[in-house]
Amino acid sequence: MKNLYLLGATGSIGQQVLEVIRGKTDFKIKSLSFHSNIALGRKIIAEFHPEYVSVGDLHNMLILKDEFPDVLFGYGEDGLMKAATYSNDGGYLVNAVVGSAGLKPTVAAIKKKRNVLLANKETLVMAGEIITRLVRASGVILLPIDSEHSAVFQCLKTGNNHEVARIILTASGGSLRNLSRDKLKKVGIKEALRHPNWQMGAKITIDSATMANKGLEVIEAHFLFGLGYEQIETVIHPESIVHSMVEFQDNSIMAQMSLPNMRIPIQYALYYPERVKNNFPQLRLETIQNLSFFPMNFERYPLLRMAYKAGRMNGIMPAVYNAANAAAVQLFLDGKISFLDIETIVETALNDIKNIENPSLEDILAVNKKVKGRILN
Amino acid sequence: MKNLYLLGATGSIGQQVLEVIRGKTDFKIKSLSFHSNIALGRKIIAEFHPEYVSVGDLHNMLILKDEFPDVLFGYGEDGLMKAATYSNDGGYLVNAVVGSAGLKPTVAAIKKKRNVLLANKETLVMAGEIITRLVRASGVILLPIDSEHSAVFQCLKTGNNHEVARIILTASGGSLRNLSRDKLKKVGIKEALRHPNWQMGAKITIDSATMANKGLEVIEAHFLFGLGYEQIETVIHPESIVHSMVEFQDNSIMAQMSLPNMRIPIQYALYYPERVKNNFPQLRLETIQNLSFFPMNFERYPLLRMAYKAGRMNGIMPAVYNAANAAAVQLFLDGKISFLDIETIVETALNDIKNIENPSLEDILAVNKKVKGRILN
Repeated sequence: MKNLYLLGATGSIGQQVLEVIRGKTDFKIKSLSFHSNIALGRKIIAEFHPEYVSVGDLHNMLILKDEFPDVLFGYGEDGLMKAATYSNDGGYLVNAVVGSAGLKPTVAAIKKKRNVLLANKETLVMAGEIITRLVRASGVILLPIDSEHSAVFQCLKTGNNHEVARIILTASGGSLRNLSRDKLKKVGIKEALRHPNWQMGAKITIDSATMANKGLEVIEAHFLFGLGYEQIETVIHPESIVHSMVEFQDNSIMAQMSLPNMRIPIQYALYYPERVKNNFPQLRLETIQNLSFFPMNFERYPLLRMAYKAGRMNGIMPAVYNAANAAAVQLFLDGKISFLDIETIVETALNDIKNIENPSLEDILAVNKKVKGRILN
Repeated sequence: MKNLYLLGATGSIGQQVLEVIRGKTDFKIKSLSFHSNIALGRKIIAEFHPEYVSVGDLHNMLILKDEFPDVLFGYGEDGLMKAATYSNDGGYLVNAVVGSAGLKPTVAAIKKKRNVLLANKETLVMAGEIITRLVRASGVILLPIDSEHSAVFQCLKTGNNHEVARIILTASGGSLRNLSRDKLKKVGIKEALRHPNWQMGAKITIDSATMANKGLEVIEAHFLFGLGYEQIETVIHPESIVHSMVEFQDNSIMAQMSLPNMRIPIQYALYYPERVKNNFPQLRLETIQNLSFFPMNFERYPLLRMAYKAGRMNGIMPAVYNAANAAAVQLFLDGKISFLDIETIVETALNDIKNIENPSLEDILAVNKKVKGRILN
């Protein structure tokens, strides 16, 4: 049995993690966290019996404490850290928090020699060098649970790392892929949130439409797989069937495919190194009939170009990119800026902030706060 | 350095094996065989300096013996066996012989604890159980060097064998894929030999058009990967980019892709377990743009249906299928029967021959001779 410490239990990924382990005796949720969805959180606690639960604020904690007297509770940043490091029974941190709040709990868990299943992109984007150094030093396993990096991870098993020529991350193009740059100027929130293939949270759905999501994934892949940015390519693949590919130096390309279903990479990470049976719908290519691929367009998606630039600058610039994009998307979702303002805001931040080489975790968290503060206030 | 014993050096696969190792110091051709292309064979001997050479008949042997006094020569079936088992320096038999003549040399090489790189489908189709038993007993490596089985072999590295749900062999549909059954009645040899994606020998090109090639591959896969026939599926994939796939029980499908280029699976087998750099053209999916997949049509391709039937009957029936098909294709290439007569001849043979369970190698070779004799005489 694997012990799990699940951060972000009520989010889209968190819920699918729970779906995968529901009714299975292979896992025990030792601790979990969620932010503010108390109605759903209450059900999860009643079903999965965690020993420790962290919520967003004191008010919600006090309500739940009354309802579940046998459960230990915490709240806020301190509670999240406790949920990540709870107990000495080993096991896996499942980090499905959205945003930069996921970084510190990951660091703390790795330091405690806890394995990490990572859905929180920000962890690696903001502090990739620190995290990968810590992972090596602690000898823990760090497994991706998004579909692209899970695909790359699987494909890499067919060769040696030094034989990789390039990896090719696929991108559906997101909710607005059929609109011209001109039409993007007037795009509304509702339209941008309508992803053709995946049901996901609001932030990542917008990031898919701007291609910032692929940008974050490029930086994540750089750290996760130890590849240079010139080895990381992207291709538009509207059907979201091929989740990513690895080209080896012998000109053989390995690809991982499935119907778009996050529970597949989630289950893969949870049961790794085993592949266990499930009752998810089967991919029949003769039913899909067509897989199409188009060149990435960096003019159409300047946020992807900026991600490569920030990634190559390294230092704190990936964190600046991430913070500026997160703040800008929040403004867009709040109806305060237009869709194309997101990229302008990120570009401005990348130009304004002076880089720091070999930043500490504190440097990274400070610039994250500073960039977001400037944009949001 | 790996020692190679190359059977079928002047054929399409044999020549590509030589192309892959040309100029490399990683390999030494200890022995080779070819049938009758003495002009090409002479060049190969001069370039690769084999110690032993076997040719089809005494006449050609005598000519070459004069030209290459330092080389040992043999001819006919005996010579082929000697080429396969030449020297005690270990290494790899590369069996690129076309047809049933490839079986006995493979058996002899495995008994000598020699690894086998197998392009000769007939070996496994005719005597799959005997071969796989011998391979296990001798502890040698048996690697496929056709594109489909190489793809499956690579994909299998991403999971455990007991986790495989099914394998999916892709089929281009061959040279006549756009013709109706009705039009097939009048198809000529030239038309049937015009394969859209691959440059191959005449026999295999006809087998691609009838789908008998895929039938042979299904039987081969059954023995090579130890899978039931219900786990082996086929799909039409006209572009020949995805060379085959493995679906695991977690509903994840792994695929291997490349431009259609036999040198890729050949190089993979020769250098296994390493993937080495080459200068073959790179697959760019954004240039190909479309990969299409269609259900296999067993009415359109009855020879594939018959292959499954023969495979499930087991015993000598796969050998009967192979022999009848080989003889019928020869008649077609000689202009003696029509294209659709091929399937009628195979069906008749499968109905006429009484099966033998657990056949010996002698049983198999006898039925091979008998079936071919009946059809050709």
